[in-house]
Amino acid sequence: MDDSFAVHRHLTEHQAERAVLVGAGYIGLEMADALKQRGLDVTLLSRSKTVMPTIDPALGLMVGEELERNGVRVLTSVSAMRIDQAADGKQSRLSVIDSAGGQHPADLVIFAVGVRPNSDLAHSAGAKLGASGAIAITRRMETNLSDVFAAGDCVETYHRLLDRPTYISLGTIAHKQGRVAGENAIGGDRQFAGALGTQSIKVFNLAIARTGLLDHEARSGEFNPLTAATEANDHKAYYPGAVPLHILMSGDRATGRLLGAQILGAQILGSRKAEISKRIDIVAAALFQNAAVEDLNDMDLSYTPPFSSPWDPIQMAAQTWVVATRDAARSNQVGMAETAA
Amino acid sequence: MDDSFAVHRHLTEHQAERAVLVGAGYIGLEMADALKQRGLDVTLLSRSKTVMPTIDPALGLMVGEELERNGVRVLTSVSAMRIDQAADGKQSRLSVIDSAGGQHPADLVIFAVGVRPNSDLAHSAGAKLGASGAIAITRRMETNLSDVFAAGDCVETYHRLLDRPTYISLGTIAHKQGRVAGENAIGGDRQFAGALGTQSIKVFNLAIARTGLLDHEARSGEFNPLTAATEANDHKAYYPGAVPLHILMSGDRATGRLLGAQILGAQILGSRKAEISKRIDIVAAALFQNAAVEDLNDMDLSYTPPFSSPWDPIQMAAQTWVVATRDAARSNQVGMAETAA
Repeated sequence: MDDSFAVHRHLTEHQAERAVLVGAGYIGLEMADALKQRGLDVTLLSRSKTVMPTIDPALGLMVGEELERNGVRVLTSVSAMRIDQAADGKQSRLSVIDSAGGQHPADLVIFAVGVRPNSDLAHSAGAKLGASGAIAITRRMETNLSDVFAAGDCVETYHRLLDRPTYISLGTIAHKQGRVAGENAIGGDRQFAGALGTQSIKVFNLAIARTGLLDHEARSGEFNPLTAATEANDHKAYYPGAVPLHILMSGDRATGRLLGAQILGAQILGSRKAEISKRIDIVAAALFQNAAVEDLNDMDLSYTPPFSSPWDPIQMAAQTWVVATRDAARSNQVGMAETAA
Repeated sequence: MDDSFAVHRHLTEHQAERAVLVGAGYIGLEMADALKQRGLDVTLLSRSKTVMPTIDPALGLMVGEELERNGVRVLTSVSAMRIDQAADGKQSRLSVIDSAGGQHPADLVIFAVGVRPNSDLAHSAGAKLGASGAIAITRRMETNLSDVFAAGDCVETYHRLLDRPTYISLGTIAHKQGRVAGENAIGGDRQFAGALGTQSIKVFNLAIARTGLLDHEARSGEFNPLTAATEANDHKAYYPGAVPLHILMSGDRATGRLLGAQILGAQILGSRKAEISKRIDIVAAALFQNAAVEDLNDMDLSYTPPFSSPWDPIQMAAQTWVVATRDAARSNQVGMAETAA
């Protein structure tokens, strides 16, 4: 909060014209959107090859294009190395030097390069630390100190699919952890159910949402993931204003277990909106209960031509996944047979 | 399809100015919306006290108000009794007489008073009939006739919550049944998972969606339902364009099992849309797996200020339900104690 008020005050009190954003996670992307709305010239430096590394690079590429369509200068695979006072000596004029030697004049530089848990106070009081230096807790949100509960961005977060502590700093999770900690602190007995890796963001006219595990995350959890891509309209094309959705569906090849999904699309096209963020939550609800990808096809989801199709796009993506997984298994068998011969 | 083409042709070829719609289910409501878009004067006759009897009357009342705001004349608790040729003798001018003695001039009368299964052919071939005269089938979509499978509006539909056959004629269900019947017909072995009672509709600027059981439906299934009402914004009010959602959440008092939900809200307010139809599908996904109302609170649903709140409105409604159920149980205990005293 303090940081965002400081940025707002700076923009109000100074004639800031150029901003450089360091970091292309969701804070960096939201700041790019917000600062363009206020008329600034915006440069975004991304250390990863595509912006928003918490989604598949294929979708990250589309997010980058949306930024550029809206006038944001996007530089990928670069780090910020140094900030110089600009040569003309104006008080508020800076210059950001990147790892490729680029120089980016700026009246405002915002670092949005990740979150570290502020666990010093608890640690100095004897609390054990866990994942990423966050306070170690049980699923009842107990620290190792008697009668001391902890919740939010300073604690580790149990991941329901990976079945181990991770570090995720999101308000949704903090609220749920706080409810559990609070109930237990007054004598209740509630367990934190765990995070699923759900996230949504608006970037200009795009909505992007994900839940579950990316392939590399799934492999770290000893799953054998396959991710299949589907493009489907959010609703029947014969009803005006259909929005194409790019959907990635992930599941475990061996067991068919659902591992996650990602959706990207225009949040508003004309007067229509594609219900992307709550569509990902259908998958989150299924993940919560260890569903199989095939279970999505069996779910009685809502349909009316302005809002969906008889098979919801999520279900079309599940069907694509089933076929892709079968094809991959077949070509694998053919491959093994050829090797044997 | 034939009927809708005939209506379209009639409107194109004749100077129809006034339409009377008989029936206030979703077909009647969609026709009211569509005919007003084409500039007709529209009267809707509803036999039930509120339009759209498949949702709670409190929400049905709001749908009725939306129709009237858009110039539709809505008459409730009346039936169409007779259609007369109008006195002035013009070829296309009719007069619909209702059960309260009202006379409604019309150039077009549309009956949308429900669906009956067209099972005559199958019945005459020896197929047994089940719920509402629809073709009786197993969950593998087999009729009693060897090698004859059936699916769609002509067959009964297994209800997953009621655990018995019902009659529901919706495209979503027909597609799922067709997939099961088709796979089994070529030697597969798939079961129809069952309907959950999910439905969504657009009426002018409103989106209305439901899933699960209304209270009277739940009681027919030997549940002891409690339904609690919540009003919550679709997303954080500090982000422009928040839309109030009216949510009803239903669960079983004794077991806490989730029984259903209904949501009504403006589908578009300014340039925002409230993701109502896919929000109901979060509940449908939970119902599919026999979740408790409390499980909704534990689900890692997506959040970003333009699209939701850290507790999604669905979760706020679940929390309202938990409190309402506890309060009802307490006042019931007090009531019993007073009776005992």
